[in-house]
Amino acid sequence: MLLYIGLVHYPVYNKNYDIIASAITTLDIHDISRVARTYNAKGFFIITPLADQKELVQRVKGHWTEGYGASYNPDRKEALELVQVADTLEEVKEEIRRKEGEAPVCIATDASKLAGKIIGFDKARDMVNQSIPVLIFFGTAWGLHRQVLEEADYVLEPIYGPTEYNHLSVRAAAAIILDRLVGR
Amino acid sequence: MLLYIGLVHYPVYNKNYDIIASAITTLDIHDISRVARTYNAKGFFIITPLADQKELVQRVKGHWTEGYGASYNPDRKEALELVQVADTLEEVKEEIRRKEGEAPVCIATDASKLAGKIIGFDKARDMVNQSIPVLIFFGTAWGLHRQVLEEADYVLEPIYGPTEYNHLSVRAAAAIILDRLVGR
Repeated sequence: MLLYIGLVHYPVYNKNYDIIASAITTLDIHDISRVARTYNAKGFFIITPLADQKELVQRVKGHWTEGYGASYNPDRKEALELVQVADTLEEVKEEIRRKEGEAPVCIATDASKLAGKIIGFDKARDMVNQSIPVLIFFGTAWGLHRQVLEEADYVLEPIYGPTEYNHLSVRAAAAIILDRLVGR
Repeated sequence: MLLYIGLVHYPVYNKNYDIIASAITTLDIHDISRVARTYNAKGFFIITPLADQKELVQRVKGHWTEGYGASYNPDRKEALELVQVADTLEEVKEEIRRKEGEAPVCIATDASKLAGKIIGFDKARDMVNQSIPVLIFFGTAWGLHRQVLEEADYVLEPIYGPTEYNHLSVRAAAAIILDRLVGR
């Protein structure tokens, strides 16, 4: 398994479907890095082109991996060590290609039902469990820009429970998706 | 399915295993109520005896169910309408008994492997899918007080991925557990 996770802050939509760069939610860094560590991901990329937002991520990471937090909570250190920042998805793909020797299969996630390259959890699970790099990425705010979805190799089917309600937080969605794809 | 969720802020442990009442994390209210709504839970109880903390929960709930948030984001309203506050687990059980005509089966969750009444996800899933009330509850801070675990009918097995790391946030754990117990 050569699994990577990405959390995209640009380009995403706001409530009015304008294209924006969303703000970092620091709890996302903690929650999703702990999920990444639990399910043995090799890296968790936080994607934003904004300098002050990248600095915020590095400050949180630094506190828990080198600063006081590292000795206060070593479990958190193990998780946050997986965090890297990147300007763009392209940069993430290039970094994975450099590290693994081949470009990753890119699977976008989205709460809406898109026509086209939707794959189910079973097929995605098969892919993740091969020895090829796979990058699964999540949007923030009101979701990934359409072009990002179009450029992905696949889009994962949305999460549903027994109802039609599918408005999970990205933290909850990332947890459930990793469990479905990698969990025992 | 007559499923209820509880999030316990007292009695829980702090890092030094003193018994404390933990502070409310407002994002827990949002994330876990959205999980509850997605998986068709009938209620989400936030348990704390502290008056100012109960008031905080009511303020968040009020904003999203009656205030500006209700029209701004109706999906969030649907989720937060499930939220109720209670002083104690006993009060929660009594409320469910009053509503459903019988006391709930109580399933605690804990990241540690406890001897005794551990049940697996399969058995818990069978229980949840019967027409008996079931209350699944989660601890905050460094976990549920031992007495609470002892008084539960069952303790759910911890979540593991392919590694021995099991330090998920309560938000991620609640999402994964509900998906495993109720998800399609």
